[in-house]
Amino acid sequence: MSQNSLPQPPGASRGSFRVSALGGGHGLSATLSALRVIAAEHLTAIVTVADDGGSSGRLREDMDVLPPGDLRMALAALCDDTEWGRTWAQVMQHRFRSREGVTGSLDDHAMGNLLIVALWELIGDSVEGLRWAGTLLGARGQVLPMSRQPLTMSGTVEPMADQAGSEAELPAATGGRLSTQVALAHAGSLGRLRDVQLHPAEAPACAEALTAIELSDWVVLGPGSWYTSVLPHLLLPELRDALYETEARRCIVMNLTPHTDETAGMSPAEHLRVLHHYAPGLHVHRIIADPLSVPTQEREEFAEAAAVIGAEVRYHDVAKAGQPEVHDPLRLAIAFSEVFGD
Amino acid sequence: MSQNSLPQPPGASRGSFRVSALGGGHGLSATLSALRVIAAEHLTAIVTVADDGGSSGRLREDMDVLPPGDLRMALAALCDDTEWGRTWAQVMQHRFRSREGVTGSLDDHAMGNLLIVALWELIGDSVEGLRWAGTLLGARGQVLPMSRQPLTMSGTVEPMADQAGSEAELPAATGGRLSTQVALAHAGSLGRLRDVQLHPAEAPACAEALTAIELSDWVVLGPGSWYTSVLPHLLLPELRDALYETEARRCIVMNLTPHTDETAGMSPAEHLRVLHHYAPGLHVHRIIADPLSVPTQEREEFAEAAAVIGAEVRYHDVAKAGQPEVHDPLRLAIAFSEVFGD
Repeated sequence: MSQNSLPQPPGASRGSFRVSALGGGHGLSATLSALRVIAAEHLTAIVTVADDGGSSGRLREDMDVLPPGDLRMALAALCDDTEWGRTWAQVMQHRFRSREGVTGSLDDHAMGNLLIVALWELIGDSVEGLRWAGTLLGARGQVLPMSRQPLTMSGTVEPMADQAGSEAELPAATGGRLSTQVALAHAGSLGRLRDVQLHPAEAPACAEALTAIELSDWVVLGPGSWYTSVLPHLLLPELRDALYETEARRCIVMNLTPHTDETAGMSPAEHLRVLHHYAPGLHVHRIIADPLSVPTQEREEFAEAAAVIGAEVRYHDVAKAGQPEVHDPLRLAIAFSEVFGD
Repeated sequence: MSQNSLPQPPGASRGSFRVSALGGGHGLSATLSALRVIAAEHLTAIVTVADDGGSSGRLREDMDVLPPGDLRMALAALCDDTEWGRTWAQVMQHRFRSREGVTGSLDDHAMGNLLIVALWELIGDSVEGLRWAGTLLGARGQVLPMSRQPLTMSGTVEPMADQAGSEAELPAATGGRLSTQVALAHAGSLGRLRDVQLHPAEAPACAEALTAIELSDWVVLGPGSWYTSVLPHLLLPELRDALYETEARRCIVMNLTPHTDETAGMSPAEHLRVLHHYAPGLHVHRIIADPLSVPTQEREEFAEAAAVIGAEVRYHDVAKAGQPEVHDPLRLAIAFSEVFGD
């Protein structure tokens, strides 16, 4: 967990902002690793609960619980920067592997997923169980599910002009509709995702998450898988309304590589238009983008798409040296610090 | 974990004895729950690692690790008597159950077994991994495996005179020899166990366990499954030699119900003769027995068997009120306190 060994950047005013970060997976981990540096005492992670793949997928199928994986990653990113916190974060992130030649029933389960599920079963409440896991790690800030109810996603793939030939690959049996998050996460190769929905559509949001958004100074969306980690928060009506109504300022962090398995062929501007399409009432104040992720010839279009949702773009070098596809927590912390201090 | 909410008995002089407790399973948990009251600061549990059934059996088979189950139970028995310690002990003891109608791959795994295995895989040393688990629980005392090497057990069943008819049930395919601890643990219904062995026979004992025995004031054996939890420590040559040579005094705690699945038809005196048979050089100072577990007409024979190994019998009411087959931690603590203070 090298991102937990960060020195505090000179410009950072730790603890002066109350921040809620919305997302899932590695993108949210990157945001949290940065935000903990400048808002460690008042940091809330609000995490998608629609994952249905991997270890999380098996657990929600067998145990009828929230998918714990994205919650676990968020907790690990917030672990206390001590031998204690780092060791337990490593334990949480540890994945079981059977010895060579054996296929064991635990294979690929992340230890922290199992620990979180055990806490949920014992304590009987997902938020309280996560609080116990956070205390174990000495987590800086709290980690909340966007809903206490496990969610699923669906969407339709519309082949792009230059991808017409791939139409045969679409899931005809379901009328062309993809009905798992795993399927959506790989839809970019088939075409453009349309009509993305959460199920149940009217699931209640986690009350503590709504309160955190209401009381925040800043709400951060992204980076992350655009349809399956960033968009879900805007599809849940109570959460979307909270984002519309909060007096907090909103900041979007763009991905470093716009073209992922979900978003092949989508420009940065199109990323913003997707959010605007699903949440037309969302007003955004600032957008943080790495200059290398928005080609010069697309900047004007990108600024226009940002203006539609009320946002100004701030370009910051936020990629790791030598790893242009990975956010550097310290550089991202500096970007947040400057944006929040505007 | 009600046994962790004990008040300190008036006669107990906490911390005045250094004690090593050898065993496994529920029997060792009972001893530890009592000893923590009077020797919390200098308490070492030395735990058998020959279990091959249940969650532990699946883990050692898949992962090639020590069976964690008995170690987990010992840790849970030593948890700190606070909300923190008790909650994490409950988490460790929690067993996964899939929702109704589903057979999940995690079913019946104890959470603590998985946590201990993850620590072992990450940290790379079984003793150090257990130290981390103990720190999580705020454990009073340390828990050590009898060996860092997973062990197995074997034994032969000799039908008793009145059980000759059951000979047909013996595992003829293996020449009448039982080769798993699980099989030994149910052998009492088939006859009397003979020639019980550990494999590998010359496995090294855990060095820290040898040191603890050397430095103890008292070493406690039992209660517990006589062949599979108490006897194994006497079958490992290095551990047996340490028990022969230590200047610590030795105390045996008898079972409340002599007739278990392993020891059907065996009198309390025969229990002692079994230990003497396998460890003829073992000198024992005191034996704690509940008066109800040694019938009056067997007391003379029992005292004689005790004398053969050098021990005096002390009768103490150590069963729980209304649960004659369960040791009461507080009553057992009082018994230890009086025996140790002799």
